[in-house]
Amino acid sequence: MKTEIIVIGDELLIGQVIDTNSKWMAAELNKQGWEVTRITTISDGAEDIKEAISSAFSRVDTILMTGGLGPTSDDVTKPVLCEYFGGRMIFDEMVYEQNLRYFAGRGLQMNQSTRRQAEVPDVCTVIPNPVGTAPIMWFEQEGKVLVAMPGVPHEMRVAMKGDVLERLRRHYGDNDAILHRTLMVFRNTESGLSERLTDFEAALPPFVKLAYLPIPGVVRLRLTARGNDEDLLQKTLDEMVEKLRTILGDDIFCDEDMTLAGALGKMLKNRGLSIATAESCTGGNIAHEITAISGSSAYFNGSVVAYSNEVKESLLGVPADVLAQHGAVSKEVVEAMATGVKQALNVDCAIATSGIAGPDGGTPEKPVGTVWMAVCCGGVVVSECGHFAGSRAYIIERATQRAIMMLIDMLCGRSGK
Amino acid sequence: MKTEIIVIGDELLIGQVIDTNSKWMAAELNKQGWEVTRITTISDGAEDIKEAISSAFSRVDTILMTGGLGPTSDDVTKPVLCEYFGGRMIFDEMVYEQNLRYFAGRGLQMNQSTRRQAEVPDVCTVIPNPVGTAPIMWFEQEGKVLVAMPGVPHEMRVAMKGDVLERLRRHYGDNDAILHRTLMVFRNTESGLSERLTDFEAALPPFVKLAYLPIPGVVRLRLTARGNDEDLLQKTLDEMVEKLRTILGDDIFCDEDMTLAGALGKMLKNRGLSIATAESCTGGNIAHEITAISGSSAYFNGSVVAYSNEVKESLLGVPADVLAQHGAVSKEVVEAMATGVKQALNVDCAIATSGIAGPDGGTPEKPVGTVWMAVCCGGVVVSECGHFAGSRAYIIERATQRAIMMLIDMLCGRSGK
Repeated sequence: MKTEIIVIGDELLIGQVIDTNSKWMAAELNKQGWEVTRITTISDGAEDIKEAISSAFSRVDTILMTGGLGPTSDDVTKPVLCEYFGGRMIFDEMVYEQNLRYFAGRGLQMNQSTRRQAEVPDVCTVIPNPVGTAPIMWFEQEGKVLVAMPGVPHEMRVAMKGDVLERLRRHYGDNDAILHRTLMVFRNTESGLSERLTDFEAALPPFVKLAYLPIPGVVRLRLTARGNDEDLLQKTLDEMVEKLRTILGDDIFCDEDMTLAGALGKMLKNRGLSIATAESCTGGNIAHEITAISGSSAYFNGSVVAYSNEVKESLLGVPADVLAQHGAVSKEVVEAMATGVKQALNVDCAIATSGIAGPDGGTPEKPVGTVWMAVCCGGVVVSECGHFAGSRAYIIERATQRAIMMLIDMLCGRSGK
Repeated sequence: MKTEIIVIGDELLIGQVIDTNSKWMAAELNKQGWEVTRITTISDGAEDIKEAISSAFSRVDTILMTGGLGPTSDDVTKPVLCEYFGGRMIFDEMVYEQNLRYFAGRGLQMNQSTRRQAEVPDVCTVIPNPVGTAPIMWFEQEGKVLVAMPGVPHEMRVAMKGDVLERLRRHYGDNDAILHRTLMVFRNTESGLSERLTDFEAALPPFVKLAYLPIPGVVRLRLTARGNDEDLLQKTLDEMVEKLRTILGDDIFCDEDMTLAGALGKMLKNRGLSIATAESCTGGNIAHEITAISGSSAYFNGSVVAYSNEVKESLLGVPADVLAQHGAVSKEVVEAMATGVKQALNVDCAIATSGIAGPDGGTPEKPVGTVWMAVCCGGVVVSECGHFAGSRAYIIERATQRAIMMLIDMLCGRSGK
């Protein structure tokens, strides 16, 4: 099935907010085996909306639309859709009742403009919105479907997962089960991996597809099986995963799709290990990545962001003479930070960074982008110096991901396989 | 001037990466007084690209395009543009020389596919790319302009700032100077502010525009002056800013457009104050925001991410009985964290957080989204309890921004105006 996404909002066209909805929707649809062929971002203008719909329907049968469903007068999506599909606006008591409860639950009063949220075109099926006041609308005409959802990311996601995807599957008679398995692989380039898997790919059953999804330093291998016999799909995927394990061995470091910090967290949890970080140039970003994972308190004790040398000495116990002799951005200091935070926070493993994120502060010997990273676990300490090119934000991000990967690498080696 | 943006890349249509380019470009164009009327994301397919160009040129005279300029065979933008504009591919010695230097500077060898980066259509003006190997291409036909730029964000930004915007201005005979001034305002809603500024707006000279750009808790007021007399523009903007200062007084907390952490950093720097953070549920994100600002080492000493109670006690000196009596998510603990980190890191100001980011860990008394935040400066401590609704990432982000804003608020009060 092919679908287009239309994103509505003046705020997107002036660059005020970033559109995260279409990426998320595209990824979800892709998992279903559906194809997003175009994403169009347009203004809140009635003519633009109508033109974009006509144009998209000339190419595909399904449109998913977000935005323009707020209660204020600049949100015109609802009346425009009503006119486009030849309906008239009616007052939906069910939506009204639900919104009354929604407001009451938050101790709020409904005013005239929020009351209008219950007005809907009579030519659509209303899908209740459990986490907001804008109704989700399903339009169907001459075999074509348009689903209008709120632009608030949380509301859109709940709608998609709750009802919209399921209705789309029913509508298109798509009764296949779809199962995914993702393996995260390191120490391989995408092209190198593809060579190693030539025979594996040639022998895949026709109902299983393999996708390569690279991120820096990692290739995610996603197996997708599709068919009406769910048990068979499950069994086949299990076999394929085993085959991949045989071929790739320890290069597989995680058996589900998650962030590097998520993969690290899973390893730590499985082995009952705890962790802390000591961060200079990454400024807390590694801790932020680790704690972005729900349940991370089971293994993450904390972090010392040691931006000043004073803090490196007082909280991490980096000797003053080591700092003076080698400078803060050095193998010696970053290793002392790693072992220092491990001891201070009484944990099993630690990650440390010290570098020059720029744009100022570089020297000929240590230019901007020079980052020393160290990891330790038990009595072993490993460090390396990275040279990252780009903006300050990019250098921080790359150093963060590389440092996490270093600990994953160490833990994989330590596993004794 | 109206322009459309076309973003090319299969990876965007399967939701593998997020498009940050179009937001950035739209914001830059908006600052120039130009209007982005549509953003279209399409696949790397030749037909899609040609159709999208034709369609966009039927609506506007200018297209800015990113992506599909890599050296691999799936990047077809260059030959497609060549065909569209009726040219043939030639080998550009200047691009080749530059790419040779680019590779040499990184200690890399150029291979056959990277050598092909120097092939360009003979119907475009090549704009050198100082930070990458893909040439930027300027096509001009019958008064219409298409600029093709790499999809790598850093390369695109350098191209836009370096040459593309300037050429667009020249092409459209747009010789006006454009000056901006942004004031960041808090303690006001957008509609409340708009009422307070009714007379101010009515009295604005015709060459000055005022835009309201809200983010949670803040409205950014952007004044844009446009004309050929730069001195007059400058003088008028200075006067307008003074008028706004008279009307809004202390509600203006920053006189340039930046993140909240940037505005806080500017205040701290101006007053010679230092800062540290003590973070539980925000997990290092406040430190990350502060250190995202270049030059933050001048005022940021460091941070203790105290996820476990053990760390709250050992590094921040939160008394065990206070933790036992009130629980980690409490006014008493978060205030002790703030004063504790202020003392431990020997700074003037501190921010602390302790809350439940979810999705697990909530209780009827302290549901998910409950976050205690404290700020202190000198001997004064202020705390408040936030109730944020949404995903774990959203709760962390909102608590981060609110906590930073609390310290800004305190510093504004302390300024004695």
